[in-house]
Amino acid sequence: MTTGNSRVKEARKLSRRSVRSERRLFLADGPKAVEGALSVEGCVLEVFATPAATDQYAGLARAGQAAGAPWTLVDDRALASLSDSVTPAGVVAVCRFLDRPLAHLLDRAPRLVALCADVRDPGNAGTVIRSADAAGADAVVIAGSSVDPYNPKTVRATVGSLFHLPVAVEADPAAAVRALQTAGLVVLAADGGGEVDLFEADQLLAGPTAWLLGNEAHGLPDDLAALADHRVRIPIHGSAESLNLSTAAALCLYASARAHRRS
Amino acid sequence: MTTGNSRVKEARKLSRRSVRSERRLFLADGPKAVEGALSVEGCVLEVFATPAATDQYAGLARAGQAAGAPWTLVDDRALASLSDSVTPAGVVAVCRFLDRPLAHLLDRAPRLVALCADVRDPGNAGTVIRSADAAGADAVVIAGSSVDPYNPKTVRATVGSLFHLPVAVEADPAAAVRALQTAGLVVLAADGGGEVDLFEADQLLAGPTAWLLGNEAHGLPDDLAALADHRVRIPIHGSAESLNLSTAAALCLYASARAHRRS
Repeated sequence: MTTGNSRVKEARKLSRRSVRSERRLFLADGPKAVEGALSVEGCVLEVFATPAATDQYAGLARAGQAAGAPWTLVDDRALASLSDSVTPAGVVAVCRFLDRPLAHLLDRAPRLVALCADVRDPGNAGTVIRSADAAGADAVVIAGSSVDPYNPKTVRATVGSLFHLPVAVEADPAAAVRALQTAGLVVLAADGGGEVDLFEADQLLAGPTAWLLGNEAHGLPDDLAALADHRVRIPIHGSAESLNLSTAAALCLYASARAHRRS
Repeated sequence: MTTGNSRVKEARKLSRRSVRSERRLFLADGPKAVEGALSVEGCVLEVFATPAATDQYAGLARAGQAAGAPWTLVDDRALASLSDSVTPAGVVAVCRFLDRPLAHLLDRAPRLVALCADVRDPGNAGTVIRSADAAGADAVVIAGSSVDPYNPKTVRATVGSLFHLPVAVEADPAAAVRALQTAGLVVLAADGGGEVDLFEADQLLAGPTAWLLGNEAHGLPDDLAALADHRVRIPIHGSAESLNLSTAAALCLYASARAHRRS
């Protein structure tokens, strides 16, 4: 059993975004995430686990073996150094990045896409990925100055969906909008001041759709919202000024899912 | 200007739930929350602010004066001791509890209610209150072992809706379900294994409805879900196992809002 060996030390560096980006590796923390990662061929390079977690998650250890991923026993302290959880579950995997070029995703004729422009809160970004998966979306595009989808809080908030749903990372949100439009998707900006009411838009929603989602605090920049084919508002019936970003995303994505299934 | 005077010290104790419950007082942190609190007659007992925030939010200071709430200048350190924010905005109000007896809320013939049973995460509870407000709900009931709605993280996540939307706190979720039913509301349990599909339920949703929401990790206990008139599932189209609790709440509440507006 190792407490501070060099592989743990190397893996620990993946808590930094710059190191993740350079190596294109990240950490999947906890049995759900490790299970998700092991379900993706070639994703897991190595698993670190405490002896207790190895007992508790024996099925995972077998799956790790089947995947050819080394399973390294470490003590509680070494494991905790790899986890940003207050109560680490005892198992962490070193994983390869999962994102694919947007062009590859568009080759598969997606019918429902979420495009996050400048979403900053890691929990929000993860919840958008989880909700997009639940709504049956085909892909999520993380663009602009958005949070890194491999941030530990984002990975946790996806509750496994990061490993199920295709994700692309694009530097320029405007270029992503144009690529989606060129691929035949109608781009709808989720915008509190939009000209279309989400719940009066079933006809618009029935075709292939990409939802453009902005920053939590500032929404979408005007020039980006103007690139979208339509700007759609979620009606606010009470005194609230707005909705939480990930809540708004789920309402939009499920409105599309509903329209797709009725059309 | 005071740095550690006795009133600041007393206010600081309101960061503890036990002290909040005993005194029926809580802290509203930041200009949005203080503005919301000042809009409720008799809610604000006192405001603490730094000189810089007093300059920046001069309108709030005037509203405080109009409301007869003392405005006490404190230094940055004293203010920070009242805030759980990493970057305190410089203004915190001591507020009276806002919840009302459930019976009073039911006297007003509500058409849409959210009932949280054992919701534990403060951010989730606050986001449910915000979404309920946006969806035009008439009240939120916080029941059982749920988080205290006056937790600073909950207050922040409501983004002012705590001050707009009537809230009741009930010890026993089952008693709350029965009271809602007696008042003529159809109680719908949000339940991943429910027998009704949310998006096939417009007829059910057209009448007065209360949504029963369970714990983030464990959902609703079977005996409580069984008390509801129907158990409603949000369809999961992809590989996600479930939705985030506050996301699910918003989808349910907006489905009701949509059905109410069409009926």
